Amino acid sequence: MEHALAIDIGGTTTSLGIVDRTGKILAKSSIPTRGENTFGEYFKRLRKEMEGLVSQNGMEDKISGIGIGAPCANPFTGVIEGATDLPWPSPIPLKDIFQEATGLPVVLGNDAKASAIGEMMFGAAKGLKNFIMLTLGTGVGAGIVCDGRLLYGSRGFAGELGHVTVRRDKSRPCGCGRHDCLQNYCSAGGVVATAKEILKDSAEDSLLRNINEDEITSRYVCECAEKGDRLSLKVFEETGKVMGEACANFAAYTDPEAIIFFGGVAKALRFMEPAIREAMEENLLFLYQKRIKLLASGLEEADAALLGASALAFENVLQ
Amino acid sequence: MEHALAIDIGGTTTSLGIVDRTGKILAKSSIPTRGENTFGEYFKRLRKEMEGLVSQNGMEDKISGIGIGAPCANPFTGVIEGATDLPWPSPIPLKDIFQEATGLPVVLGNDAKASAIGEMMFGAAKGLKNFIMLTLGTGVGAGIVCDGRLLYGSRGFAGELGHVTVRRDKSRPCGCGRHDCLQNYCSAGGVVATAKEILKDSAEDSLLRNINEDEITSRYVCECAEKGDRLSLKVFEETGKVMGEACANFAAYTDPEAIIFFGGVAKALRFMEPAIREAMEENLLFLYQKRIKLLASGLEEADAALLGASALAFENVLQ
Repeated sequence: MEHALAIDIGGTTTSLGIVDRTGKILAKSSIPTRGENTFGEYFKRLRKEMEGLVSQNGMEDKISGIGIGAPCANPFTGVIEGATDLPWPSPIPLKDIFQEATGLPVVLGNDAKASAIGEMMFGAAKGLKNFIMLTLGTGVGAGIVCDGRLLYGSRGFAGELGHVTVRRDKSRPCGCGRHDCLQNYCSAGGVVATAKEILKDSAEDSLLRNINEDEITSRYVCECAEKGDRLSLKVFEETGKVMGEACANFAAYTDPEAIIFFGGVAKALRFMEPAIREAMEENLLFLYQKRIKLLASGLEEADAALLGASALAFENVLQ
Repeated sequence: MEHALAIDIGGTTTSLGIVDRTGKILAKSSIPTRGENTFGEYFKRLRKEMEGLVSQNGMEDKISGIGIGAPCANPFTGVIEGATDLPWPSPIPLKDIFQEATGLPVVLGNDAKASAIGEMMFGAAKGLKNFIMLTLGTGVGAGIVCDGRLLYGSRGFAGELGHVTVRRDKSRPCGCGRHDCLQNYCSAGGVVATAKEILKDSAEDSLLRNINEDEITSRYVCECAEKGDRLSLKVFEETGKVMGEACANFAAYTDPEAIIFFGGVAKALRFMEPAIREAMEENLLFLYQKRIKLLASGLEEADAALLGASALAFENVLQ
């Protein structure tokens, strides 16, 4: 059976794994994406980690290709182009770098799109031909599947839904140089920004006030929400409202059966879902009302990204 | 050579024509969409018009199929579902009605999508694999072509871009029951609404004040703009600004090479284009900046709709 080396380069963590054709992850590992000073040093560390993973598992001659998911990856050129969520200057010709280092065929794909393919092959989107997968993490990424196909667009940049403008009052600056992108509200940082706004506007007691405001993370807000903290629940309600409004617009593009949520912030989906649904239904054109499922990813977070990256390799190289 | 009977049902006018496979319109005609009291009466009149057109041109035995473009048409079921721009209650099983009346194979498709196919076969989108065609008329319709394919979505309702919400202040009610849809700004009625707002907010003299405010049409605003009327030019500038902001978001969905404008309001494209471009570039994610062409339809308005409707028949029935 053929195996792929799967690599997912996230804004915070880089995961790698050896995946077989059935979607089984035989071994996996990770390194911090921001642990080194330059891309050169990062790649050196990643390469060592890759080689260790392969040799420790006796897979030296069994890897048929490498699939890499990364933000702002151009699948046609194999280059990362100006990813605002990664710490290195771009463009980075990632495909060539990996190919030269390993001698293996390499497929580079957008991380969020890779996850959508993984979800379609192995997860909650099995059998669905029209869905949008939203990855809520350091940024907000998306993979749009319409009429059974993942959308690429003229240069492979279809589905940058994290950078759809959702407000027109320029209240939140974005790393992309603009304002009020969806990811300024629905990424991990977006949740924190909303938490700070709510804390400022309210005098109500909250677990969120137990730590220094600068130490608040979306994970902490989620933990407080789990304990029933009212302001934390309100943070996810606000986040869900913006998300739901955006989802209503998304529907008008590709008439999806489902929107699937994935990534760190999606762990708080149960706190956001009522607000997402309410805002979505309220803002949906009648044609789409009461038809769109909101689903949590069917896969473990790290696994989905790896399975997605492996799916890139299986689909494009090994067949 | 095979011929199709093409029918385009617009909010105001229903056009029909006999089209050959090369995209030549051999004969055409039209009736008002709102001239009769019921759908039954309308269909009776349309049928008479169809039969007249066919017999006058000696085509009785030469029509191989019928292609119909209409708003809110479900291509999978052949039914019009709740089109807010048509005067009859829906659903209307249009495909079955025409098939029964004529004995010919019938393909029903969304009018805006049909135009996109027509544009790709015969017009400005020849050779393009990624574009969005926006029809600015009584409403705003769209056909999205991504990776060389027209998007349909789960029930054929992909690309209802006229009903994307572009403002969040609920200032303009829409026929769909919601507020601030793109078509409330960029359709013929949207242009008129903007004209009235500008007239109200300004004391400046204008040709627009020469007629009763209730008689202002988008065509009249365009005529005044052609004469250099400043407020009329401002109307299209405002219209273009909203359009440009929306186009910037559209880009993030399907990474298009071009956005093509078509329909009555698109006749004022030269007055809107600088504002569309400026607002679009200002709001585009860097990945898409300075790459998206804004094009006017390469076909005459009535022809594009007919050619699109015929393309539906040629693509789906005759092959």
